[in-house]
Amino acid sequence: MLENIRVVLVNTSHPGNIGGAARAMKNMGLSRLVLVDPIDFPSGDAVARASGATDILDNAQVVGTLEEALVGCTLVLGTSARDRRIPWPLLDPRECGVTSCEQARQGGEVALVFGREYAGLTNEELQRCQFHVHIPSNPDFSSLNLAAAVQVLAYEVRMAWLAAENQPTKVEKFESTSMLSSQAVTADELESFYSHLELALVEIGFLDPAKPRHLMSRLRRLYGRSGISKLEMNILRGVLTETVKAARGEHHKQGKDDV
Amino acid sequence: MLENIRVVLVNTSHPGNIGGAARAMKNMGLSRLVLVDPIDFPSGDAVARASGATDILDNAQVVGTLEEALVGCTLVLGTSARDRRIPWPLLDPRECGVTSCEQARQGGEVALVFGREYAGLTNEELQRCQFHVHIPSNPDFSSLNLAAAVQVLAYEVRMAWLAAENQPTKVEKFESTSMLSSQAVTADELESFYSHLELALVEIGFLDPAKPRHLMSRLRRLYGRSGISKLEMNILRGVLTETVKAARGEHHKQGKDDV
Repeated sequence: MLENIRVVLVNTSHPGNIGGAARAMKNMGLSRLVLVDPIDFPSGDAVARASGATDILDNAQVVGTLEEALVGCTLVLGTSARDRRIPWPLLDPRECGVTSCEQARQGGEVALVFGREYAGLTNEELQRCQFHVHIPSNPDFSSLNLAAAVQVLAYEVRMAWLAAENQPTKVEKFESTSMLSSQAVTADELESFYSHLELALVEIGFLDPAKPRHLMSRLRRLYGRSGISKLEMNILRGVLTETVKAARGEHHKQGKDDV
Repeated sequence: MLENIRVVLVNTSHPGNIGGAARAMKNMGLSRLVLVDPIDFPSGDAVARASGATDILDNAQVVGTLEEALVGCTLVLGTSARDRRIPWPLLDPRECGVTSCEQARQGGEVALVFGREYAGLTNEELQRCQFHVHIPSNPDFSSLNLAAAVQVLAYEVRMAWLAAENQPTKVEKFESTSMLSSQAVTADELESFYSHLELALVEIGFLDPAKPRHLMSRLRRLYGRSGISKLEMNILRGVLTETVKAARGEHHKQGKDDV
């Protein structure tokens, strides 16, 4: 589906920006790059900034006019930083991502069109677009780097695509590690831990059983809200066991057995 | 509120990326940059890529350790591209934006921490972060350019901030132009237009009143769903008037008066 979405760069001056755009595209799963009348391409600067996304550059289509770049497109979205005389249907980047994915899902061909580094798209070019997309930016410093603008729209396309595919936007790390790490402790295991903890605190002389004050309830509140896993509990219990041993002079390094 | 959110770049190799990050920050309304042990800073490359965001570079705080960079922070979010041995609470960029803004709104200090270009953050550094943020990317090409990663998170911070401030994520262009451009036509104006259109189509010989077929109903369907404004209607009526004149040989350039 993402192969139905092309990125069109119009009259780009700096080949580094073409490379940066290619990298951003590949990072987000887009692959079709169309260059309209680029000033300097192919270029070593583009390859350097693409940082491994050279397949996107190698397969880039270079054309002479925007018209050629848009052949077959059913939805054309043009980025626009500046206010224009003619009001036009406007999308924010999130809406752009969702609309592009919907169109591509229905088998349509989508173009995301980006203008020149310093002058953007001309009014004539903007009028070839059904929608204008504006990246909401600081009004006092509104012009994004070209590759950065491609990154933002490609990111929103990916977020919309992941949602449409029912794929998570984040993958929990190492789900395959021991179940212990994600399994929560039970209330009785927690109680058994608190008893062990209390014993250890007495042994090291931190808790006076005659004057316990609120120490244990404070510690219960802390550990209680922490959502301790079985693995963490095993670690904590291990620490307590060694603490008690050490306090009793039973630690193997300091213990009598070693003497 | 956005001044409570700092961007921390750890051990950055390429000063160009520092400049690109500064530009992305300023574009999105962030201003506080902290550099932990940068390899090459200050640098002309940073200034070049900052493209006018030199105030961010000039005010950047350079420190020796991550610990110093995080002084005063109540929420630390670390970007993480790779899977890690230790599972950790994970946010996607959107959640990162919302969480950062909420914390900043409550007067907290937030750090968004970005690692080295090639190696990211170390496990030790990641363990100083309450949450890890992962930008969902193509599993086969997952590593974003550093400035591009800053751009994505800063963009999501801005989107969350605009929502929290009840500000629109897009501003309709030139709302101050003539009311005509936004005012919708009334049903009777539309009917009057259709009559005029029909007359013109007959005059130019496109519509045969004896065999009208479905032409007018098709045109009604087209214009009816287009939500025509008064300004557009005036333009269309002007076109029709001139068309009729021309068809009748009354056009001033071709008319008898000019002969």
